[in-house]
Amino acid sequence: MATKHILIVPGDGIGQEVTAVGKKVLDRIAAKFGHTFTYDEALIGHVAIEATGNPLPDESLEKMRNSDAVLFGAVGHPKYDNDPSAKVRPEQGLLKMRKELGLYANLRPIKLFDELLGASSIKPEILKGADILFFRELTGDIYFGEKGRKNNGDTAYDIAEYSRYEVERIARKAFDAARTRRKKLCSVDKANVIETSRLWREVIQKIAPEYPDVEVEHQFVDATAMLLIKDPRRFDVVVTANLFGDILTDEASQIAGSMGMLASASIGDGTGVYEPIHGSAHDITGKGVANPLASILSAALLLDISFGMKAESEAVIGAVDKVLKEGWRTRDIADSSTPADKILGTDRIGEEVLKFL
Amino acid sequence: MATKHILIVPGDGIGQEVTAVGKKVLDRIAAKFGHTFTYDEALIGHVAIEATGNPLPDESLEKMRNSDAVLFGAVGHPKYDNDPSAKVRPEQGLLKMRKELGLYANLRPIKLFDELLGASSIKPEILKGADILFFRELTGDIYFGEKGRKNNGDTAYDIAEYSRYEVERIARKAFDAARTRRKKLCSVDKANVIETSRLWREVIQKIAPEYPDVEVEHQFVDATAMLLIKDPRRFDVVVTANLFGDILTDEASQIAGSMGMLASASIGDGTGVYEPIHGSAHDITGKGVANPLASILSAALLLDISFGMKAESEAVIGAVDKVLKEGWRTRDIADSSTPADKILGTDRIGEEVLKFL
Ligand SMILES: CC(C)[C@H](C(=O)O)[C@@H](O)C(=O)O
Ligand SMILES: CC(C)[C@H](C(=O)O)[C@@H](O)C(=O)O
Repeated sequence: MATKHILIVPGDGIGQEVTAVGKKVLDRIAAKFGHTFTYDEALIGHVAIEATGNPLPDESLEKMRNSDAVLFGAVGHPKYDNDPSAKVRPEQGLLKMRKELGLYANLRPIKLFDELLGASSIKPEILKGADILFFRELTGDIYFGEKGRKNNGDTAYDIAEYSRYEVERIARKAFDAARTRRKKLCSVDKANVIETSRLWREVIQKIAPEYPDVEVEHQFVDATAMLLIKDPRRFDVVVTANLFGDILTDEASQIAGSMGMLASASIGDGTGVYEPIHGSAHDITGKGVANPLASILSAALLLDISFGMKAESEAVIGAVDKVLKEGWRTRDIADSSTPADKILGTDRIGEEVLKFL
Repeated sequence: MATKHILIVPGDGIGQEVTAVGKKVLDRIAAKFGHTFTYDEALIGHVAIEATGNPLPDESLEKMRNSDAVLFGAVGHPKYDNDPSAKVRPEQGLLKMRKELGLYANLRPIKLFDELLGASSIKPEILKGADILFFRELTGDIYFGEKGRKNNGDTAYDIAEYSRYEVERIARKAFDAARTRRKKLCSVDKANVIETSRLWREVIQKIAPEYPDVEVEHQFVDATAMLLIKDPRRFDVVVTANLFGDILTDEASQIAGSMGMLASASIGDGTGVYEPIHGSAHDITGKGVANPLASILSAALLLDISFGMKAESEAVIGAVDKVLKEGWRTRDIADSSTPADKILGTDRIGEEVLKFL
């Protein structure tokens, strides 16, 4: 029986809708297992800019630092996407949060619920049994290096940077995880062209002997992008840099049937942040059709990783599994064989999950 | 009836095997259509390093400049991949060739031969009719910016750079191509994080009004990586930066059933270079099982783009199509329904193609 303080940070777009459902699931878990969860809310992204002019107000950061875990939604708004010269952007809030909280490891488990085998664009016989755990580095690379313009604005540049220390700490997390799984680690880089990738490969090679039980493979990112689709079962743990991780994990969402099913955990020096990998999805915002299962599964990761509540986490995953087994779907994970009356909106499928808790 | 001088640059690994077959097809086309094709050979990559110490000897570059087109194989060798500190690398030859010849536009048509619908890991109903033309920028980005180490080698950096001029010239090629196709252009960037991407998006937005008949969409690269697999038919022409193009086109090879089927054209200021997108594949080198169809289709692109020989190019593509229709396959494009005696090696499937020419 534990007392924990959880910060809810819905952010933009469907972030609001799905996080509300994720919170209900946490509430139910507290009641069922006799824990006391207290909550607060904080602003980030476009909604924070609208309210305060700042995509990550100090107050939000303070609240994050003082909570035991953060359940996060999404940030982003089309307004900024189409204005490349905007100086203040929702994404700055997200990046600043990652940096300030030292969230250098982003874990993205890619696992297909058996019931969703048909929902993917990839053939079921290719997918069946695929189970990948990504470790994406989250506070370095081209995301955080100096960037700017020169030649009167006619040339743009971005600097990608990695230090040995940064590569080593994420690599160790990935090696450790591989030990608890199928003992295979695939490190993805572009060492045939990029210097940061060569450093990356050097570090992995250097620490690999400390994990003699883990089989290490190095892949070029272009090959990985292809192999993830061609043969997803060959991967166990994958570790890669920030930008490659961004691209590959979104691609890999197709292995799980839909982005709407994928949760992620960002961990590091302090408070952990748990969020769906789908974005703010303004095209469906406010329609009540967003899939909240990724937020619910993010809550499951939060329980497991930040609170060490294994049984509670498994109860949540089990409930999601049962809902899928009963045939309930949101639009994004329905296929041509799904009867119309089995397709639910955001809140209704959340209620089905609660029924099994 | 034309006289043309073609330089054959097989490079490393299976580059040797497949390019030999591509050349035979060019030879047959010359005979059939009454052209005179003369040939020379040049070294690049690992084989060039072994012979001269230089991954792109001046003599090779000179020969490239003085030829009407280059049929290229692949470069790369595992020896260097596993040695991040190697100072001389096969890939340097490739990159130098691209830069020196001003090959700023890499065209990668992704089109599935109907007979190969079953060979892909993606469901046939998702793939059927997919037809994408990628324009990958090829002489800028993080590939060619300054790179190095600092802090006693403990920090690595790479600078990504683009100028307006560089973006505009590739964008115009892509817009022009979209006009001759389904009039849709998807520009892929990461403008929510990266400054070079913001410049990229600015330039596309600026020239779009000159092509009012082309519908332009901007996508973030992570979304594209997902959508290519989820719904490949939504794409017509895609234009993107060097690194994103590298990753996305390899991924998209799964739409075509196999990397072994994909040809590319690198064009720009001077001689055009035509090459399969698969690499040197040392794991199957020397076994005679490599798929030469991508090299043959690269020869078809060469005939079309560098020589303006449309009928000749179509004859080659038609012959490949007929070979597939007759059920012949190489190992990589065979599936569980392919009878063992229909699976051919590199030279034998090349002979089948020649039979239809
Ligand atoms: C919104 C964007 C800045 C972000 C990223 O690129 O990291 C998102 O795509 C993600 O993966 O969390
Ligand atoms: C070999 C490598 C340097 C090259 C690249 O990244 O451009 C290859 O992957 C390609 O796509 O032609």
